[in-house]
Amino acid sequence: MQLSLSGTKMAGLSGLRSIMEDVAASTVEASAEEWLNLSVGNPAPILAVRDMWRAALTESIADDFDEAGCRYGPSRGSHVLVAAVADYFHRAYGWQLGPENIAVGPGSQMVCFAAAALFAGPGAHGERRIVLPMVPDYTGYQGLCMHDDGIAGVAPLVHREEGHRFRYALDIEALRRRSDIGMLLISSPGNPTGRALSRADLDELTALAAEREVPLFVDNAYGAPFPRIAEVHTEPMWNDSVVNCFSASKAGLPGERVGFAIGNPKYIAPLAAFMSNSVLHAPQLAQHALARVLADGRLDKTTRDAISPHYREKKHFVEELLNELMPTDVDWRMHSGDGGMFCWLWVNHPWFEDTALYERLKEKYVFVVPGRHFFVDPLLTTSLADHATRCLRLSLSAHDKVIAEGIHRLADVLCEMRDGAVA
Amino acid sequence: MQLSLSGTKMAGLSGLRSIMEDVAASTVEASAEEWLNLSVGNPAPILAVRDMWRAALTESIADDFDEAGCRYGPSRGSHVLVAAVADYFHRAYGWQLGPENIAVGPGSQMVCFAAAALFAGPGAHGERRIVLPMVPDYTGYQGLCMHDDGIAGVAPLVHREEGHRFRYALDIEALRRRSDIGMLLISSPGNPTGRALSRADLDELTALAAEREVPLFVDNAYGAPFPRIAEVHTEPMWNDSVVNCFSASKAGLPGERVGFAIGNPKYIAPLAAFMSNSVLHAPQLAQHALARVLADGRLDKTTRDAISPHYREKKHFVEELLNELMPTDVDWRMHSGDGGMFCWLWVNHPWFEDTALYERLKEKYVFVVPGRHFFVDPLLTTSLADHATRCLRLSLSAHDKVIAEGIHRLADVLCEMRDGAVA
Repeated sequence: MQLSLSGTKMAGLSGLRSIMEDVAASTVEASAEEWLNLSVGNPAPILAVRDMWRAALTESIADDFDEAGCRYGPSRGSHVLVAAVADYFHRAYGWQLGPENIAVGPGSQMVCFAAAALFAGPGAHGERRIVLPMVPDYTGYQGLCMHDDGIAGVAPLVHREEGHRFRYALDIEALRRRSDIGMLLISSPGNPTGRALSRADLDELTALAAEREVPLFVDNAYGAPFPRIAEVHTEPMWNDSVVNCFSASKAGLPGERVGFAIGNPKYIAPLAAFMSNSVLHAPQLAQHALARVLADGRLDKTTRDAISPHYREKKHFVEELLNELMPTDVDWRMHSGDGGMFCWLWVNHPWFEDTALYERLKEKYVFVVPGRHFFVDPLLTTSLADHATRCLRLSLSAHDKVIAEGIHRLADVLCEMRDGAVA
Repeated sequence: MQLSLSGTKMAGLSGLRSIMEDVAASTVEASAEEWLNLSVGNPAPILAVRDMWRAALTESIADDFDEAGCRYGPSRGSHVLVAAVADYFHRAYGWQLGPENIAVGPGSQMVCFAAAALFAGPGAHGERRIVLPMVPDYTGYQGLCMHDDGIAGVAPLVHREEGHRFRYALDIEALRRRSDIGMLLISSPGNPTGRALSRADLDELTALAAEREVPLFVDNAYGAPFPRIAEVHTEPMWNDSVVNCFSASKAGLPGERVGFAIGNPKYIAPLAAFMSNSVLHAPQLAQHALARVLADGRLDKTTRDAISPHYREKKHFVEELLNELMPTDVDWRMHSGDGGMFCWLWVNHPWFEDTALYERLKEKYVFVVPGRHFFVDPLLTTSLADHATRCLRLSLSAHDKVIAEGIHRLADVLCEMRDGAVA
């Protein structure tokens, strides 16, 4: 058997996926209950959120089934969802959208996958890359690209802040030095850090995108107008060079795969055509359910009353735990920001290494995610490697007592690693 | 803006998609009721089928929602569906399947798209193509390929049969002359003709696949063990070189996007990895619903009692209408076979041209699909072009009176075309 060049790339699993397989294999056993899994990317199980989606899907099955489930749908998206999106964003931001500005896909990961194939890769003017303006960012982006070396990340500026805090900042000059940009892609607020673009950041990125005539994809999966899991410093912006992506996943419906992109028709039309040629369209009942909760205000209400407060409280809870439990002589820092689905930690000591921590915590039945996987591979051969391998990601989706006990063991392991280095 | 080479290909719409857009644009108007649409690819609206899927989805939402809708799922497929598939095919055919033999995707179109990227395209030993062993075949296959000239079709042998019948046959010698095979892909029973592989055909294709060390993808979307929309001459066969694809779409759930592939792990593992990197996974509630109807016998019962008889009766109905209404001095032939979602007609006269027919029928508010779109483009420059442009596809999914009136108008247009040629 022989795979194509793209096939060899796409048949591989990124480092993080290997870890996820390790987690899945370990926790599927009879011992599942014993594990403290702080690696999960699932949104937190929030009752009000679950009830909203279940009700909306039940309504769709009762009312929309003949039209939705029993027929193929438009590749751009179900008419009812496309109309609901246009109306919702008109109300939220005053945008004037027609169907030509909207493309729905089975999750925003698939939308970004399509974008990567459309806007990056070998072209008439040589190889162009997906460029992540500020790593660390969502690891799934690294799997999108069907060519070796097809994605690049720009190292951030690292700012220490008061107490045990730090923050990444956009290094626009470094980004501008790249001549191989096919598309820019950034999550804001971001996975794993929760960092959100400022208006100034967004203006600089947009100007660069316009200048290079490439799209800037802004993945708002955690952000505004829903589900506002982390602080949003700048609401999504309409611009000819920006494609804004939104998703129902982090708003509580990851299993059903619905996301959509909004932007200039010159970028949206190829996305809709790609869907038509590949996956045909997103599942329709979930599209109808999303249309319902966008239209009648349920999603806004649930975002405001349930989702945002939940994660804000979780983040405070974790920060207090860390301040209380982490060894006082260790230079650990948490990325700044309220809320977010994760806590991103930096332990700045030569004796610390993310994968060593992973293995040691696994021995204590705790899973976390090593930091390096959120940086694009080539960067790990640069000076950024020291930083990248001294980070880790904790999920805030777990139950409080799982988080508390997990952080206890994390603190223990840090002490062991520190003492091992001294010995 | 600049698209990549793959992007230029994927942003394009095949000829058939342009027609589908024409149909959609025409029938969305206030005049929708006036149109007789015999171009549709949707399965027929059968009450028992609709009720089965609606019940199964309702059960999934009631019982599986926390596990299914609210969480990300495994890229290989939901555990419950993978287990149900293994069990079902063990009962049906005695196959011994583990999870390593199964990959679920959001529709079998997406499974085939992944396969095309994995097994065809530029590779270490040059360019390899998706080869369709016997055109005409499903037009959607032509959109799968991300490279220009990445797909090839082999012309069939054309056998005239008694009365107004004809049949295509596999030209295995012509297929064997191709040295560029990356994967073989065939629908059986096929869209648009309903032709099904014989055991001898399948053995020859399998031997060739094994010899070339490439996978043979057999798309059973219309076939056995469900939904048996057309005659099946050979049940799906387990073989190391064969990847069998199955879909819930033609069994009545096209809108929700669930399909799966079964085969050797060397072909299945890359498919599951591709899903993980692109679309993450298929929608989970639909996977759970499919698991339910596979496990409890509802799908088999509905196939036997509702789906198969429906299409068999439709086909007989159409054949009788054609025999009654078509001009007696025209050499028209229908592809042989009982059942099928379509009626495939060949009108063997120099005055007949499929696109001219399309335009003339459109003037009479009837939509059919021109035959040429089911042949791969390069073939249209060969001697096969005369045949390909003298074919058309009628859908059997429409209501009887729509079909009857549509065939009336088709017969009228054929008379006009014939008379115009004589004049």
